[in-house]
Amino acid sequence: MGGAARAIPHASSRAAVLDVIRAAGTISRVGLIDATGFTGATISTVVRRLIQDGLVLESGRAESTGGKPRVLLQLNQSSRYAVGVHLDHAGIAYVLTNLGGSVVARTARPGVGAEEPQAVVDRMSGEVEALIDGAGVERGRVLGLGLVSPGPLTPTSGMRLTPPSMRHWEDFPLDRALSEATGLPVILDNDATAAALGEHWSGLVGQTSTFAALYMGSGIGAGLMVNGVAYRGASGNAGEIGHICLDVDGPECWCGARGCTEVLGGPAAVVAAARADAKVARAAGLTGRKRSRPSVAAEFAAVARAARRGEPGARAILERSARYLAVAARTLANVMDVELLVLTGPSLAIAGSTYLPVVQEELDRAFFPRAAHRVEVRLSRSAATASAIGAATMVLQSELVPLRQGLQLPDNLSDSEPAPAHLTSA
Amino acid sequence: MGGAARAIPHASSRAAVLDVIRAAGTISRVGLIDATGFTGATISTVVRRLIQDGLVLESGRAESTGGKPRVLLQLNQSSRYAVGVHLDHAGIAYVLTNLGGSVVARTARPGVGAEEPQAVVDRMSGEVEALIDGAGVERGRVLGLGLVSPGPLTPTSGMRLTPPSMRHWEDFPLDRALSEATGLPVILDNDATAAALGEHWSGLVGQTSTFAALYMGSGIGAGLMVNGVAYRGASGNAGEIGHICLDVDGPECWCGARGCTEVLGGPAAVVAAARADAKVARAAGLTGRKRSRPSVAAEFAAVARAARRGEPGARAILERSARYLAVAARTLANVMDVELLVLTGPSLAIAGSTYLPVVQEELDRAFFPRAAHRVEVRLSRSAATASAIGAATMVLQSELVPLRQGLQLPDNLSDSEPAPAHLTSA
Repeated sequence: MGGAARAIPHASSRAAVLDVIRAAGTISRVGLIDATGFTGATISTVVRRLIQDGLVLESGRAESTGGKPRVLLQLNQSSRYAVGVHLDHAGIAYVLTNLGGSVVARTARPGVGAEEPQAVVDRMSGEVEALIDGAGVERGRVLGLGLVSPGPLTPTSGMRLTPPSMRHWEDFPLDRALSEATGLPVILDNDATAAALGEHWSGLVGQTSTFAALYMGSGIGAGLMVNGVAYRGASGNAGEIGHICLDVDGPECWCGARGCTEVLGGPAAVVAAARADAKVARAAGLTGRKRSRPSVAAEFAAVARAARRGEPGARAILERSARYLAVAARTLANVMDVELLVLTGPSLAIAGSTYLPVVQEELDRAFFPRAAHRVEVRLSRSAATASAIGAATMVLQSELVPLRQGLQLPDNLSDSEPAPAHLTSA
Repeated sequence: MGGAARAIPHASSRAAVLDVIRAAGTISRVGLIDATGFTGATISTVVRRLIQDGLVLESGRAESTGGKPRVLLQLNQSSRYAVGVHLDHAGIAYVLTNLGGSVVARTARPGVGAEEPQAVVDRMSGEVEALIDGAGVERGRVLGLGLVSPGPLTPTSGMRLTPPSMRHWEDFPLDRALSEATGLPVILDNDATAAALGEHWSGLVGQTSTFAALYMGSGIGAGLMVNGVAYRGASGNAGEIGHICLDVDGPECWCGARGCTEVLGGPAAVVAAARADAKVARAAGLTGRKRSRPSVAAEFAAVARAARRGEPGARAILERSARYLAVAARTLANVMDVELLVLTGPSLAIAGSTYLPVVQEELDRAFFPRAAHRVEVRLSRSAATASAIGAATMVLQSELVPLRQGLQLPDNLSDSEPAPAHLTSA
């Protein structure tokens, strides 16, 4: 059976219409027909149901262009919400977004460190509850929870080949445990893919619906968006540029291969190089003993701050890392033929300004089809939280219907705006 | 405007239905509704037009399962044809396929060599005419010509950044010139992408609609299929794994970068290594002076034959090349997260059995999400002609409608099968 046709299932028409309304802000039914290619009858039916379900509002009319003025549609932003959680060794970021993907509440909490998985899940459950309650949002309006974390996911649940810092999470059924603890449906995905989705919804990438988000947190990865849809590959593990080979005779990586981007130029390599240089180590304050050391991400941030203060050794180490990341970015661009790369993730939130010119220069110089077009490199405006935002939008994108068939809203639930966003920091 | 919805335009419903009928062999209207997700009304309209246009036939009824037996639909294989041309320095391969993508005629002719582009186009025009006439196919039934060549392509026409052997083709408006010479609509694309499409249509990849074709001809590239659709990227230049970096300090490549797969392990590197070893050069018969040398592909084939005869030096050179290709294949698999890699292209038609185990071993050992799934590596059954077949299927896939709006079939044109396939070799 041809895959092309299979990609256009019944259920997605509702999601496609919702996504067009979201991206357009306001749009008429005729505009929806143009944008989706669906028939007038399909649009009419889908829109009627969306209005019945309270997800879409009629909001005035477009200026007349001679004929009858057209009714404009828009999302009912506060009709539904989603929780996004980015779980990493170094920190856990939480966001609550409305149906349009706007963040209405956010929290940052300590990472998983050496804690036992079940203890972390119990803590997360309380933190999610506090987030929703603090925003004054009815639980019945929360569609679900998107949970994203580093590294390869298995199709069933949980992480399998985990980075060294989270080895004790291997085989832990993370999504099931968190769903039981919170009572919310949970979607599990890769944090780099989520970051790409977050950038898409946040609007930075504008009209470019095919792009890659180059992610650096504790590790390095990439999220891929193709025609506005996250490209996940066969098992949800696409975009693993942290583990492509930049040197066939290079040092061994924790993943079992040699000369990976991550082992040559990732945050841990930067920290190791900084520790090996007494002057840089002192400037960055990397003095802790092995047992009491902060996370790699925190130490990387300290090196980046030293570089920003003008410490030449720290600058040189970061620039060497940036050159490896730039070559990996070029490989990604050559394979996917993208027009836009967004630098994102917690580590690039701090050091992005050092990496951006090096990556752009590499692509301008050596992107293979450079005669056909340029690859533009941009720094994310929400690099630290893009993954958590993307995690929440995964819930929104999952079309409401398949995720939570029997969603019951309380009868007396009003459509009033929730309390203003609150920002808590650990 | 969200890209997701844009990907479902009106015009493609016809193509989607045709593709499902093609892949299924025979299928009922109800089967089409299930497979495409379109409404019964849409399927009914699209099928009626396809029958009116002579592209689809009703062909008996399915076994009754209690209710009314269902009418089965199938392609009218001999209602339309397409020409596929694979243009390379070393050779030009031609195929004529019917609407189902089956090859009804094929020819192989000398490559472009040092000939002037316009002279090659004039020669190709005659060779295309001979192919169609020889097969006894009415010109009016030929939808168009798919022309594929080594990348990168520019969005407008022709090649821009050409490999060294075809430098004199830079800026030549290849598609326009060939369309003028043959009177057929011409689609221009990358030969590696075409190879992937050819593998998809030829049925080797079976149900796996997301896979990569790893192509080696004179150069190295890859074609990507995602859900049965060729993934082309922003400018039709996706999959350029010949020019990803495997050694940041490696030798300079003709593309301007360092340590590319092609410069380290491509056919030209194999030939250079064989020439540098007097014993291997002798065994492979690489004796020609610089001016009179055959093409890189022909010399690569000579080294591969020497390796097959057991010449240890030749074997060692090929195995080194295979290790580079294997690492590039792993990068491709890590970025795209594919389940299947098909080794294809003229050079792998000859040396594929040496490369296959090395590539498979590398992926088994170090594919990043190997805990989630294995990447299977297969050798194409039509490695030498996959690109030409893919070129023809591009014409078929372009949905007949947009390519040739006013296609006029002669009134007296019968639906009889054309003369049997003929095979000419230069």
